Formats: sequence, C-alpha cells, structure tokens
Amino acid sequence: VTDSRPIGVFDSGVGGLTVLRALKAALPTESTVYLGDTARVPYGTRSAQTVITYAVNNARTLLKHGDIKALVVACNTVSAVAIEALRDAVSMPVIGVIEPGAEAALQALSVLRSMHPSSMSSSPSITVLGTQGTVRSGAYARVLAARGHAQPTTAIACPLLVPLAEEGWTTGDVPALVIDRYLQALPADVGVVILGCTHYPLLKHVIAQRLAIHRPGAIVVDGAAATAAATATLLKEHGLSSPAGATPSHRLLVTDAPQQMAALAPAFLGETVDPSSIELVDVIFDAS
Amino acid sequence: VTDSRPIGVFDSGVGGLTVLRALKAALPTESTVYLGDTARVPYGTRSAQTVITYAVNNARTLLKHGDIKALVVACNTVSAVAIEALRDAVSMPVIGVIEPGAEAALQALSVLRSMHPSSMSSSPSITVLGTQGTVRSGAYARVLAARGHAQPTTAIACPLLVPLAEEGWTTGDVPALVIDRYLQALPADVGVVILGCTHYPLLKHVIAQRLAIHRPGAIVVDGAAATAAATATLLKEHGLSSPAGATPSHRLLVTDAPQQMAALAPAFLGETVDPSSIELVDVIFDAS
Repeated sequence: VTDSRPIGVFDSGVGGLTVLRALKAALPTESTVYLGDTARVPYGTRSAQTVITYAVNNARTLLKHGDIKALVVACNTVSAVAIEALRDAVSMPVIGVIEPGAEAALQALSVLRSMHPSSMSSSPSITVLGTQGTVRSGAYARVLAARGHAQPTTAIACPLLVPLAEEGWTTGDVPALVIDRYLQALPADVGVVILGCTHYPLLKHVIAQRLAIHRPGAIVVDGAAATAAATATLLKEHGLSSPAGATPSHRLLVTDAPQQMAALAPAFLGETVDPSSIELVDVIFDAS
Repeated sequence: VTDSRPIGVFDSGVGGLTVLRALKAALPTESTVYLGDTARVPYGTRSAQTVITYAVNNARTLLKHGDIKALVVACNTVSAVAIEALRDAVSMPVIGVIEPGAEAALQALSVLRSMHPSSMSSSPSITVLGTQGTVRSGAYARVLAARGHAQPTTAIACPLLVPLAEEGWTTGDVPALVIDRYLQALPADVGVVILGCTHYPLLKHVIAQRLAIHRPGAIVVDGAAATAAATATLLKEHGLSSPAGATPSHRLLVTDAPQQMAALAPAFLGETVDPSSIELVDVIFDAS
C-alpha cells in the first residue's frame, strides 16, 4: 500500500524548517505542506492552554489547505504540551519531536557509557536546552523516565537563543557569551545536552564548542534526524509511504510576512525559497 | 469639566508598562486600564496589516472591559503603522508614542546645538533604535521631516534588545556587546538617539554608556515622559481630565500568562503587582 498525499508539518514559525530539512533528506519521495504560524510566533513564552489552542488551529489550517496523510509537529513547545490534544483533534498519525529527541539522547548516552571517557561521571545525566514552555512542561524528563532513564533530567530555558538564530548572529562573541551564561546552570555530571528547540541547530556548533570547554566529553543531540526517521517508520506502519520513485512537491504556508520566511529559509531549511511561492493563509480558529 | 473615567492604554505585551509608569507619575489622579496582548506579543516582526488588525482588536477589547475616555498606544510599532486605523475605529482621543518621542528628540537637538560640543557635527542628525516594524515604517523620519527637521533620520532595527530586556540581562557583557554591534550602524554625525521601543528604557543606561564611547556628546531620548505630557495636554483640551484630588484605580489586563506579566512588572512598571489582580481576557476579534 502506498499513499502519495503530502505530510503536513507545522511550527510556530521558521524553526521547524530544520525538521523539514531532515524530513526531505530522509524521505526524498515524500511531498510536504509546511505551515509556519508567523502571525503568532513565538509559542515558547505562552501558557500551555494558549499553545494548545494555537496548535489545534494550525492543524485545522493545514487540513483546510492540504489533503495531508500525517501530521509532524516540528516544534518542541507544541510537542511538549499539545500532542494529546492534536491526536484528539485529527484522525491521522501525529508525531512530535520530543519522543524521537529523547530516544536519540538515550542512544548518545549509551555510546558515551561504552566509551567511558575519564572526564565523565559513571552515570552521566541529560540536560535539555529549550523554551520556557518546553522547560516548564517537563516533557523530556517524563519521556526519559518512562524509558527507564534513572538520573534526574535537568532543563535550562534559553529565551535568547531563538532571537539570536533569527538575527543570524550564530558566530562570534555574542552567541558564545550568551551560551556560556546559560551553560552555567549545567549539572556537573551532564553527559548529553538535547537541543530542545528547533531553532537551536543553527547554534549547534557554538553550543558544542562552549560545552567542550565547560563539560569536556559531553555530547550535543539534535532531534531533527531522529524525528524524520520516526516519521518514516510511522508511515510504513500505517501503509502511508509514498510510491517508490514518486516526484515530491513541497508547499510553504505562513500566517504572516512571507518575505521574512523567505529571508530566513536558507539558514533554517538549507535552500533558497522564492518569496512568491510562499502562500499567505488565514488561521482557522474554529472546529471544521 | 472633568471626567473620572479611566484612560485606556495598550501594548503588545509588557513594554508599554514603561509608558504606564510615566503616565502614573505625570497624572497621579488619572485612573488607567492597561491591556497587554501577551497571547500575540511581539508585534515588531509582523507585517503592518497584521499589526493594524491586532491593534484594532486590542482597542475593542479595552472598550469591552472598561469605560475608557481616551486611548494611549504604548507601543512604537503600533503607533508607527496603526494610529490612523485606531482613530477611525474608536470615537475618542487617541495618542501614540511616536509624535511625542520625535518632539522630545527635536528639543534635545536644540539643547545640543546651544551647547555646541566640539565633538559634535554642526548639524547633528537623529537616529531611531526600534523594532523591524518601526524601522520599516519610517514613521519617525516622516514626523521629524514634517516638523522641519532637515537632516535625514536613520533607523536601526535592534531585534535582540526586547528579549534582553525581558530576560533581565540589562547589565554586564552581553547587553554591552549586543548594543555595540547595533551602534556600529550609527551615522558619524548623530547627535540624538531615540529609544523607539517601549522595552528599551530598561537598557537606557547601557545604551547611553556605549553611545558615550562611540559618539561622545550624543544624547539618548526616551519618549515615555513626553507621551505622558502630551496625554495630559490632550485630556485638558477635550475636558477629559480627572477631578482634582480624585483617587485613581489601575487595572491590568492580559490575553495570556498573567504570572509572566507579574514577574516582569517590577522592572518595567517600577512596582510589584499581585498576579491575582491581573485579569486574563479574550481578544475581541470582530467589530462590536
């Protein structure tokens, strides 16, 4: 069984394009429709209730504009607080970034243990960098504990990293200084740091560099590739994979300012986007 | 004639509390109802059309919740693009922060000229620091030109200053480095720098400090006090001033996350606020 309909992907704005990039790389024959809710970005500072409302609005907006077969939530904040509400709202497979990211962190941890670097605690812990909403939710800690990870998981809210990534200040003194300040809160026994926000891959090299100074041997994990792999598995399980050799199409929708999405696309998506190809749509507020 | 009804004040979020603070200081007998649209903050990166829609929504939300006699737009981005739409939408005096801020800059410029510091150009220019929306609008340049200011007005978008102010990182290396980077774009002949965003007063001391290094003798102007003075004049002109000796009341409304508004109030408003006194309201979307 195959299904040539597109995968729906949404994020509060441009951050999810890092996940879309991984999806396109891992699933080159799958079509996608990506929605960035740029009229209401960012979500990371909002209440859980408001994030749930916006997430369900976005799912309905995608359903209105595309005949999608599955929904990828390319946003940590939404995945942390709204995944159940989304599963209730739509009748298709829904995948978030938290579970694949947590899984990738556990794999990195077992690699680390097998290497047992001398600089490292014998039972290293995991720290999540994320938005205030993701940190407050405790979602990564819950998923990691459910998978049998015994060490307490810590989380550090890093509100300045999103604007730094969007401003394009990803090298030099400023990001290094900002990241140093956030990394001061790292526990001594940290072994794996999860990039718990889809904007952070743009700063991955600086985070890794500073981490190497503060906690030599610790590993940085980004859940985008793991999310793409989990999506591939889910599609297969549901008989929703695209036909072999299919030529994919890719659409980008935004709720505001297509020009800005186009300007940021190269850094986040890894390719240029023609601004006129980005569709400006209204948010759908009500149940359809 | 007097009028004891409150003044309505709104902003995208907490930034406008710096204007509310100036209003309360200048008009101690006036009551106020402040709305922070924290469910959709920030506005500075959004399109003009979306900012206009949100601004009119906010005016209607204030009208629904308070019997207000005048409307103060405590946000530069809204004042820059939506002031005419607001004047069409409500039947009461509407005052923004751009005209008073521009007026204050011209006064500072004439003080500067009378002092003619040797480090300064004989006809110093004005630079505005603001959000992308305020900079793109060219609103300050238009108002200054209309008032006969001949030098070209420059504007620098400083997207990182809002998150820095909200994160409370207003001293030390990080804000100094970020501000230095933005001030690199200052013209050589700058005499006055306008803080064209209601968040920036929290960083005024660092901006002034760095400016003193880059452009000795230049002056930093913040429009909050000028806006409060202009509001006092407007109320008097319309017979809307409160009775002498009136005991004012002050209400704070938000569209999301009252706790966060309460946490940021001390830095922006200069006083603590009981979180339970902040009213959570829904945005009014439609014309009433």
